[in-house]
Amino acid sequence: MDSVLAALQDTLEQRKSAEPDGSYVASLYAKGLNKILEKIGEEATEVILAAKDYDETRESRSALIGEIADLWFHSLVAMTHLGLSHAEVEAELARRFGISGLAEKAARSGA
Amino acid sequence: MDSVLAALQDTLEQRKSAEPDGSYVASLYAKGLNKILEKIGEEATEVILAAKDYDETRESRSALIGEIADLWFHSLVAMTHLGLSHAEVEAELARRFGISGLAEKAARSGA
Amino acid sequence: MDSVLAALQDTLEQRKSAEPDGSYVASLYAKGLNKILEKIGEEATEVILAAKDYDETRESRSALIGEIADLWFHSLVAMTHLGLSHAEVEAELARRFGISGLAEKAARSGA
Amino acid sequence: MDSVLAALQDTLEQRKSAEPDGSYVASLYAKGLNKILEKIGEEATEVILAAKDYDETRESRSALIGEIADLWFHSLVAMTHLGLSHAEVEAELARRFGISGLAEKAARSGA
Repeated sequence: MDSVLAALQDTLEQRKSAEPDGSYVASLYAKGLNKILEKIGEEATEVILAAKDYDETRESRSALIGEIADLWFHSLVAMTHLGLSHAEVEAELARRFGISGLAEKAARSGA
Repeated sequence: MDSVLAALQDTLEQRKSAEPDGSYVASLYAKGLNKILEKIGEEATEVILAAKDYDETRESRSALIGEIADLWFHSLVAMTHLGLSHAEVEAELARRFGISGLAEKAARSGA
Repeated sequence: MDSVLAALQDTLEQRKSAEPDGSYVASLYAKGLNKILEKIGEEATEVILAAKDYDETRESRSALIGEIADLWFHSLVAMTHLGLSHAEVEAELARRFGISGLAEKAARSGA
Repeated sequence: MDSVLAALQDTLEQRKSAEPDGSYVASLYAKGLNKILEKIGEEATEVILAAKDYDETRESRSALIGEIADLWFHSLVAMTHLGLSHAEVEAELARRFGISGLAEKAARSGA
């Protein structure tokens, strides 16, 4: 199990009962699925632009890492909104790539 | 550290020295960054469509999980191509969301 | 009225009654809305990449023009599939930007 | 030649010399290519969502037309920013689809 993604999804789950105006995530949930999916489209574009601009400087590396973090984060928000778990995605990746033993077991136990 | 993402990125790293015609990933590396980024754009669109079509049936759940797996997978291919680690993204997510202790430590140790 | 877009949409309309295996557009209609929308996502990504790679050479100019043509083309396919007209988009643009007189009148007469 | 797109591109050309804080388009030019391309990615996503939500009501039709107008508009902003003309895209579409005679001639004369 990915402890960071797991801990992040726990946090996202808790925000489901938060006030919309008290948290960015709670306000996204309140705006609904389309708004969350718009963010996935936006962040994918920003990953693409940051990857094209990447030139191995610390600044461009940090920008690209930040955009991928945004993309994964909003994927997790969509999944939490719809009742899916990051562990299902990891189990699917493990299955496809024949990642066996502890990794897969851990992924499944997190489901 | 996420053991599935870590194991997957290890695999992606190994494919860097594979023959382009012997592996999907090796052929993507050979085609270069634009082709990898096109896949990120495509997969983001497919996540959006699968999320719009999601109706809680097992089939639509499995389709959406598969598309998110594709999106994360191609993010990892881009990162491996550019020499970045998934652990940097997880450390960034941990930092932003104040995920402390074991999770963060694990994420950093994977960097 | 845009005579090229109008002529192109006429052609797209005619392909609605063509055999799916005899024409790219007829095969897209047969695959349905999701496949057409996937193409819009793909072409938008390719426009972004071609614009980032644009360096004023004839080759890169031609590549970017080709990608924008693909994006507009697949927008027209989606509109034709759903029963909308390019002239509605042009009338909306005319309305927003206060393009009056002949241009707007022409756009409306094309609807 | 498309009189609406031509008139719109004339307007976009004029905004190149406007004050960034006096016009949405002038502010986009000032922010630069990445910001314009982010808008193309965003608008493509919004077209996809509006097409998925389209149900033949007047409201959903108008929403979808508006999103396609946004997508074409920001394509024109990118082209104007880079010194390309909508007429080149129309000439390319005319060439591909064998649209001959007046339509093509008109498209070329607009270049």
